[in-house]
Amino acid sequence: MTDLPARLLLGPGPSNVAPRVLQALSQPLVGHLDPAFLAVMDEVQGRLRRLFGTANALTLPLSATGSAGMEACLVNLLEPDDAIVVGVAGVFGERMCEVASRAGARVTRVETEWGTALDPTAMADAVRRAAPRVVAFVHAETSTGVCQPVEPIARAAREAGALVVLDCVTSLGGIRVDLDAWGVDAAYSGTQKCLSCPPGLSPVSFGERALARVRARSRPVQSWYLDVSLLAGYYGADRAYHHTAPISMVLGLAEALRLVEEEGMEARERRHRDAAAALLETLGARGFEPLVPAEHRLPPLTTLRLPDAVVRHGEADVRRALLERHGIEVGGGLGKLAGTIWRIGLMGENARRSSVERLAAALDDVLA
Amino acid sequence: MTDLPARLLLGPGPSNVAPRVLQALSQPLVGHLDPAFLAVMDEVQGRLRRLFGTANALTLPLSATGSAGMEACLVNLLEPDDAIVVGVAGVFGERMCEVASRAGARVTRVETEWGTALDPTAMADAVRRAAPRVVAFVHAETSTGVCQPVEPIARAAREAGALVVLDCVTSLGGIRVDLDAWGVDAAYSGTQKCLSCPPGLSPVSFGERALARVRARSRPVQSWYLDVSLLAGYYGADRAYHHTAPISMVLGLAEALRLVEEEGMEARERRHRDAAAALLETLGARGFEPLVPAEHRLPPLTTLRLPDAVVRHGEADVRRALLERHGIEVGGGLGKLAGTIWRIGLMGENARRSSVERLAAALDDVLA
Repeated sequence: MTDLPARLLLGPGPSNVAPRVLQALSQPLVGHLDPAFLAVMDEVQGRLRRLFGTANALTLPLSATGSAGMEACLVNLLEPDDAIVVGVAGVFGERMCEVASRAGARVTRVETEWGTALDPTAMADAVRRAAPRVVAFVHAETSTGVCQPVEPIARAAREAGALVVLDCVTSLGGIRVDLDAWGVDAAYSGTQKCLSCPPGLSPVSFGERALARVRARSRPVQSWYLDVSLLAGYYGADRAYHHTAPISMVLGLAEALRLVEEEGMEARERRHRDAAAALLETLGARGFEPLVPAEHRLPPLTTLRLPDAVVRHGEADVRRALLERHGIEVGGGLGKLAGTIWRIGLMGENARRSSVERLAAALDDVLA
Repeated sequence: MTDLPARLLLGPGPSNVAPRVLQALSQPLVGHLDPAFLAVMDEVQGRLRRLFGTANALTLPLSATGSAGMEACLVNLLEPDDAIVVGVAGVFGERMCEVASRAGARVTRVETEWGTALDPTAMADAVRRAAPRVVAFVHAETSTGVCQPVEPIARAAREAGALVVLDCVTSLGGIRVDLDAWGVDAAYSGTQKCLSCPPGLSPVSFGERALARVRARSRPVQSWYLDVSLLAGYYGADRAYHHTAPISMVLGLAEALRLVEEEGMEARERRHRDAAAALLETLGARGFEPLVPAEHRLPPLTTLRLPDAVVRHGEADVRRALLERHGIEVGGGLGKLAGTIWRIGLMGENARRSSVERLAAALDDVLA
C-alpha cells in the first residue's frame, strides 16, 4: 500500500477526513441499485437538503468533483447566446466565465479587486443592463477568503427575472447556507472542504425555477453526464439507470453529513468562527495581516499578507519546510495573489484551536 | 455508520473490491499537490499505460465515472457537423450515439442484433461512405456480453483517416487490451468492473493523433471539466491546478492496479476465462443457455437465456430472492433484452470458481 506521510491539511482543501468517514469508505461494496444503497442515496439527499437550506427535490451528490458541479449548474441553465452576469472576485469567478463562454453564453463580468467583496449595486446595474438569463457568483471565494454578500445580489437578479447560481464549495458545512431564504436557484459545492470528506463528489441543488428553464430548453444539454433531467431520473423514484454512482464515496459522504448533523450547523459554524479568530490572533502576533476586511472574512479560509520574516526566507520555502519538517500543509496565493499571501484553511475537522497551535509552533521552528 | 448487508456482486458491475483496495481507500488524506500524492499519480499513469497497452503520455484516471470517460473521448474529438460512425450493438453503443449527437456530430449508426458481433465489413462500408472524423464502438458490451472484433474495424477506420474511439469499460483488467497494437486513438474504462476498485474514476488514454485533432479544433471543447488539454496540464509535468483529484479513489486505484500487476495480466485473463467456463458448465447443467456464440463471448460478463424454471418463478423474483436470501447480486437484461436474459459478471476479485459454486447453490435453493 502507498506509504503516505501524516499531514495536517491547513491549505485551501482538501481538509483532513474524520476517522468515521475513512472507515465508511472502506466498507465492502453493495450494488448501486441495491435497496441498501438506494436507502443511503435517499438519506444523503435529505441531509444535503437540510444543509443547503432548501426543499429542492433535485438535491444530490454529483458523481464528480466541485468543478463539475459548477459546470453542471451553468451548462444546464445556459443555451448559446444566452446572457449571463458573473461576479468576478477571484479564480473561481473567472472559471465561471470560462465555463459559461464555452457553453456559448454572452458573458458580462462584474469585477472587484481580489480580496474585496462584490458591490451589490454594481451587480444590480449590470443585471439591469444585460437582462441576463443567469446571474452567477461565488459565495466563498477560495482564492481570496472573501465571503460575498448573497442576498442583495440574488434579490436584484430575481427582480430582473434571472436565475441565480451560487458556488458554495468553501461554505457548505462551514458557514450557514440557506438557498431558499436567499432565493438561489441552483448551487453546487464540494465534499473536500468544510464537510471533511475526500474530494470526488459535488453536492448540487436545483430549484423549480431552474428546472423549468431546463425543461424549456430548445436543445438538449450538451453534456449527457451532467444533464440534470437524467440525474433526476436516477436519483428520483424511477431509479432509471444513468451511470454507476461512486458507491464508496457516497457512503463516506453519508457519514460526513451525519457528523455535521450530530454537531449541529450552528455549533459547527461557531467552531469555524472561533478557530479563525484564534488564527488571526496567533499569526497576527507574528506579523501576518488579514487581506480581507473583517465584515467580509470567510472563517473556513483565511488569507493573510506575509510578514517580512516569511518573505525573507522565501514564502514557498517556508511552506515547503512546514510540509516536510512538520507535516503541515498551508496554501500559497493563487493567480494575482501568488507570492504575496497565504491561504490557511481551518475547515471541517481542522477548525480547532489545536490546529492553530500546531501551525504556530511549526512556524516558529521554521523561522527560528 | 451505514449498516450494509454482505453481498457477492455477480451483476454487470460493480464487482467486489479487494480488501487491500478497501484499506487504501481509508488511508488518511494528503493534499492533491503533495509530493507524496504526485508520486501516486505518476505511478497510476504508468500502470494504466501498461494495462491499456499504450505508450500514450495522456493516460490518466478521469475524476468521474466511466460514462464521463465516454463523453470525454467524444466531446474532445468531435466538433459540430463532424461525422462519426458508431457501432451499435447494445446500450452503450446507443449511448455513444446520444453523446455524439449532443456534441453536434452527424451520427451514422451501424447496427447489429443485440448479442451478436459487429460486422467489420458493414463498419468498413459505412466508414467509406461517411468519411467520418471518428469511428467509435464498444470493445466489451456490458448489455449483451459480446466481445467485439477491434482490429479489423480499427484498421478500416484508420485507412479512411478516421480516429478510433474504444469503450473498454468491461474489458480493461479482465481481458487483454492493446490500444497501440490495435491502432486505437482514444479509449476509456471504469474502475468498478474487472479492476475491482469502487466506481468513481474513468481511466482514459489519448494518443498523439487524437491530441493533434484536439489542438486543431476551431473552438474550445465545450466541457471545461473534461477538456483533455487542461487535464494534461494537471497530470503532466506542469501540475497546473485544474480541479482537485479524488485523492482517496486514486489511492484505491493505485492499489487495484498493483494487484493486477502482481497477478500478471496473462494469468488474470486466464482466471476470467476459466471462471466463465465454469459458469457456463454449471448453469448450463441447469438449463441456462448462452446468448452469445462461443467465438464472441466476453469472459468477464456472461449473458444467459433463462430456463423455464426461472421464467416460471418470475426472473425478477428469482433475482430478488438471490439477493435477499443469499446476498448474491446478478443482473437482469437491459433494454431489448430485459426479462429474457441474465447478465452474470465474474469480474476482477469475483472471477473464481467459488463464485460460481455459491451462485449455483443459492439458485438451487431458491428454485427448490
